[in-house]
Amino acid sequence: MALKLYIGNKNYSSWSMRPWVLMTQAGIPFEEVMVRFDSFDADSAFKRTLRGVSPVGKVPVLVDGDLAVWDTLAIAEYLAERFPDRQLWPADAKARARARSICAEMHSGFTALRSHCPMNIEASLPDIGRLVWRDQAGVRADVARLCGMWGELLAAQAPRADGLSPLLFGEFSIADAFYAPVCMRLRTYALPLPADIQAYVDRVANLPGVQAWIGQALAEQDFLDFEEPYRLGR
Amino acid sequence: MALKLYIGNKNYSSWSMRPWVLMTQAGIPFEEVMVRFDSFDADSAFKRTLRGVSPVGKVPVLVDGDLAVWDTLAIAEYLAERFPDRQLWPADAKARARARSICAEMHSGFTALRSHCPMNIEASLPDIGRLVWRDQAGVRADVARLCGMWGELLAAQAPRADGLSPLLFGEFSIADAFYAPVCMRLRTYALPLPADIQAYVDRVANLPGVQAWIGQALAEQDFLDFEEPYRLGR
Repeated sequence: MALKLYIGNKNYSSWSMRPWVLMTQAGIPFEEVMVRFDSFDADSAFKRTLRGVSPVGKVPVLVDGDLAVWDTLAIAEYLAERFPDRQLWPADAKARARARSICAEMHSGFTALRSHCPMNIEASLPDIGRLVWRDQAGVRADVARLCGMWGELLAAQAPRADGLSPLLFGEFSIADAFYAPVCMRLRTYALPLPADIQAYVDRVANLPGVQAWIGQALAEQDFLDFEEPYRLGR
Repeated sequence: MALKLYIGNKNYSSWSMRPWVLMTQAGIPFEEVMVRFDSFDADSAFKRTLRGVSPVGKVPVLVDGDLAVWDTLAIAEYLAERFPDRQLWPADAKARARARSICAEMHSGFTALRSHCPMNIEASLPDIGRLVWRDQAGVRADVARLCGMWGELLAAQAPRADGLSPLLFGEFSIADAFYAPVCMRLRTYALPLPADIQAYVDRVANLPGVQAWIGQALAEQDFLDFEEPYRLGR
């Protein structure tokens, strides 16, 4: 039986993007179930659909037969165990511990960036980005932490013959999938980045699994007011 | 070289409690490094101490030789890999996926309960608990979710000969360590619970690893205003 991944709108749902990109980039076959964000009220179609699938009523949910796995971190660990040949985590135990540390940090942190720069792949909002950058010290601190984290990891990788940025642990891993939505935010709001960090953002944006997600996000025609603090329309 | 676990005040630090209880209850030897909460300002002794240990400057941090693992989830996974004989996760793959789902749910959720009922093991605040329960729909929703989650898991376990509540996955696991600080909150604020859930809370509170933490929390004499929204003194 095929794995099913329940996700929200590709343009907006940063948590959905993580396991979708992970599975797509790693070549793990799955069936996508798109549950459009209509609203997050208890009686919304979104919540009613999810309620039958997972006790928390949120996306993403991975369904494998009669097992529902919710929350991106648990999904990532489940996939890593179920598909050991895909090496979703770094093979080295220390690198794996570091990868898990930064994924968990993403999972509970970066709240200023997440609240002031919501993911919106279709939008280009550089002026909003400049205002946010000027006024929100929390966003500047979150980006500084990203630059420190990524810079240190990237500097430890061997340079590539093709001149592209390495990924965080050399080969693609769960860590890159976890930070892919952050790369989307950095692009939409055009936040200022050092060259090595910008090169990493560009590399992630050009991964085939990420390109597939972006293409489908751009094809969506939804405009959801509650996901659009900065726009009245497309 | 011994594992070192950096933690904050035992009375207040719910995130520190999780790996400490996990390691203690599972019999994994470690050296504790207590970093007292003086304040969370950038120039506090707390932040200055942590800065040399982990890039995020938060507790808990597990240090194993030259490797620092931060964030409770990453620490739990690292310990599960490093000490496979302790079976820190359930052995069954589906049960393990469910345990990871609820730990990840704890990691990013239950925000109303966490903000209105901060962990304070030494305090007994039943009247505050009644006010919170009356006024905070988010806390009632969080507790309803806990009761649903725990109730379903506990009902699936075989009854014990000694009449005590089972743990969430039968034997002690990371999941119980993750919810141990929640059990402390439910006790401090005396929130109303069904009998099976109260029995689980009592069972967790009486685990030797939890009793050890509670005993040391009670022995602390710190009173920290920024952790005490409801009291002027002990």
